[in-house]
Amino acid sequence: LAKDLHHSCQWGSGIRWGNDPTDTGMQRLALSAEDKSVRDWFIQTMKDLKCEITVDEMGNIFAVRPGRRKDVPATFIGSHLDTQPTGGRYDGILGVLSGVEALKRMDEMGLETEGGVGVVNWTNEEGARFPVSMISSGVWAECIPLSKAHNLQEVPTVASLPTAASAPETMKTALQKIDYLGSVPCSYKTTPMAAHFELHIEQGPHLVSAGQRVGVVTAVQAYRWFRLKVVGRDTHTGTTAFEHRADALFAFAQMMVRAREVAAAKGCLASVGIVEVAPGSVNTVPGQVSFSLDIRGPETALVAEVEKELRSDFDAIAAKEGAGIGKPCRVEWTLDFDSPAVKFHEECIDCVQQSAHAVVADAPVADTKSLVRPIMSGAGHDSVFTSKRVPTSMIFVPCKDGVSHHPEEFCSADDCATGASVILQAVVRYDRK
Amino acid sequence: LAKDLHHSCQWGSGIRWGNDPTDTGMQRLALSAEDKSVRDWFIQTMKDLKCEITVDEMGNIFAVRPGRRKDVPATFIGSHLDTQPTGGRYDGILGVLSGVEALKRMDEMGLETEGGVGVVNWTNEEGARFPVSMISSGVWAECIPLSKAHNLQEVPTVASLPTAASAPETMKTALQKIDYLGSVPCSYKTTPMAAHFELHIEQGPHLVSAGQRVGVVTAVQAYRWFRLKVVGRDTHTGTTAFEHRADALFAFAQMMVRAREVAAAKGCLASVGIVEVAPGSVNTVPGQVSFSLDIRGPETALVAEVEKELRSDFDAIAAKEGAGIGKPCRVEWTLDFDSPAVKFHEECIDCVQQSAHAVVADAPVADTKSLVRPIMSGAGHDSVFTSKRVPTSMIFVPCKDGVSHHPEEFCSADDCATGASVILQAVVRYDRK
Ligand SMILES: NC(=O)NCCC(=O)O
Ligand SMILES: NC(=O)NCCC(=O)O
Repeated sequence: LAKDLHHSCQWGSGIRWGNDPTDTGMQRLALSAEDKSVRDWFIQTMKDLKCEITVDEMGNIFAVRPGRRKDVPATFIGSHLDTQPTGGRYDGILGVLSGVEALKRMDEMGLETEGGVGVVNWTNEEGARFPVSMISSGVWAECIPLSKAHNLQEVPTVASLPTAASAPETMKTALQKIDYLGSVPCSYKTTPMAAHFELHIEQGPHLVSAGQRVGVVTAVQAYRWFRLKVVGRDTHTGTTAFEHRADALFAFAQMMVRAREVAAAKGCLASVGIVEVAPGSVNTVPGQVSFSLDIRGPETALVAEVEKELRSDFDAIAAKEGAGIGKPCRVEWTLDFDSPAVKFHEECIDCVQQSAHAVVADAPVADTKSLVRPIMSGAGHDSVFTSKRVPTSMIFVPCKDGVSHHPEEFCSADDCATGASVILQAVVRYDRK
Repeated sequence: LAKDLHHSCQWGSGIRWGNDPTDTGMQRLALSAEDKSVRDWFIQTMKDLKCEITVDEMGNIFAVRPGRRKDVPATFIGSHLDTQPTGGRYDGILGVLSGVEALKRMDEMGLETEGGVGVVNWTNEEGARFPVSMISSGVWAECIPLSKAHNLQEVPTVASLPTAASAPETMKTALQKIDYLGSVPCSYKTTPMAAHFELHIEQGPHLVSAGQRVGVVTAVQAYRWFRLKVVGRDTHTGTTAFEHRADALFAFAQMMVRAREVAAAKGCLASVGIVEVAPGSVNTVPGQVSFSLDIRGPETALVAEVEKELRSDFDAIAAKEGAGIGKPCRVEWTLDFDSPAVKFHEECIDCVQQSAHAVVADAPVADTKSLVRPIMSGAGHDSVFTSKRVPTSMIFVPCKDGVSHHPEEFCSADDCATGASVILQAVVRYDRK
């Protein structure tokens, strides 16, 4: 598994942080040239394992190892091969590679299943290049219209994106460019699944700080992504008193400070990742600022409350900046993505839990069950969308310091192997039900 | 004058704000193709007025109408033809065009002067494309080394800069590209002046709100330009609690809010015009933010005090963000430009004051002298650097709402004409001394 995983990371390896050949992060933005290379490798690997391959209109790749029965859909292991611009080697990649590993193990063991067992690579899960996360599992679940996804434009400023120089691409042109615009409709009706299991690093500190080995993911927190625009007035930095300014950037700065206060008070998160400032000159007070806002919380209603409070607070901040000249700033919100809180499927959760207990059973501790815990996911995953249509659940393994979306993101080979064993067993358990 | 001024604005006309042909802003960044066109026009116009033309190593263009005596340097009228990315039609342009107008009037009147009278167009006064303002008068005054200026790189993100796609250019390559890298050394020793006068819009609200017509500029406030870099840690927006973050953007936001507080308390200004955020992904907490900081104040010591206080406050803000994980943010400062406060030359100030009183003498008010006032400049001008080597002063005329570095920057044809009359008389007065 570790060998395959790092082999697949040759395409798009990113920022180096140590001396070992594998001590680099990843920069494999969705539908980039590097993403094409790893996709080609994935398909070839699955063909060598005698899988049937389907590529749909969103470039999702489904590889199925047939089972005894042809009349039931396969049970899938899925995740994504795309990464953040300064991402690591485990987020998503571990999930897909654990699927490859599972099929290899099943072949070695000569294991026959009732239904087939599949591995799926979902397109643009990160939402880093095209700013809607999990968009292609969303189209598959018929929660996001195909046309909306195809027309979605890439983020223009994403770090070192090779295409950043030219006009921003849409998902459709990017799919065409790397030859991954399949002809099969992207839908759970056309490419059905019996269930969807996903192995992922936790991306948070709970497992690692408690010394636990497996998280049985029962739920995913809610989140909403917005694009905001603050419009003020360009003016001279040297001659314009503060009271005469409608400084869109100063308004933004206050908004960001306020966003953390409001979110923290409600046990939620609020984060800004992208900022664009115009016109962008040392001695011109910026008249326009656009930025992304990512609000998360354990309950959908809490996220809505944070949004509501921030809408009113941001209006107040904007109204004050420029009031002195009767030209206050104004702020516009656009909702890009809305992912309500999700609860996973009891049966899938049970399969994962039993498998996890089995895998850690011979650990050298008194109470091996304490190495396994139920957990809520802070991040979104393709399993959020598959769960809307088919039984779904997830497995978390610890990652160093709980850090991800960072080149130094790290999951030990042992933890990777534990996760892969759990997902293989969970799939087999589910298939037997 | 108005005709010539708007004629010259055909090259690089910017954002439209009204229906009249001249109701647009300007976007003529230094050494752009548009800047080349207006330079070519300027040289041809001055040749038609029988001027001798000199282009130096910084692309400064000196045009001299000879006087009776060949043994004394000319008295110059100077300013700049470059603009902000979202600039207007008067900042700098009025100053150069008033020089053209003055020479035309002198020819019409058949006026002979003792020394010659020159008009100079200084390169990249704005500091918008190459982020050191007044850099070419700075080299001429031997206050900035030629090599530093030639190697200065353009700001990569300046709005709609046609070259932004490719690697950033240096001033030297940009000068070569538009064929304005002259062979004459850029120095007050090689191209001497008897004095330098500059007409400019005020760019502030004092004249216009007091209903006054001419500002006799006696001084220029101090300013310093910095580039700052905040380094934190990239991490996941959905899984990373606030206490586990070293969010470089959140640190920046607090710094910007603090900068205004500190500057305001000392009667100074602090402004941020450029911000770059990396890696630039909705769901990654930014690990790096670079930004420009422009600090100004009526006294050099006050600017230094603001800087000192902000250095310590920014360190404290950075130290707090990320303290929870033992990886606090850190902040680095680079000084790009330092312009101490300046006092202009008594004799030049007198020439301007007497001329201003003469020009407004037949205004229909009881006390015409009240239409003229001494004033300090909030903005920097090429006169700051010429004042280090030759007698210098400036004339301000009102501009609408005190707004500049904005497409709607406006100065009435009457006010332009008043300013042009004052500068012509001031030059003639100085020549006679
Ligand atoms: N797991 C992960 O990083 N997914 C990206 C979507 C999100 O931002 O939560
Ligand atoms: N007058 C003017 O806008 N000059 C640019 C230098 C400055 O920022 O003050």
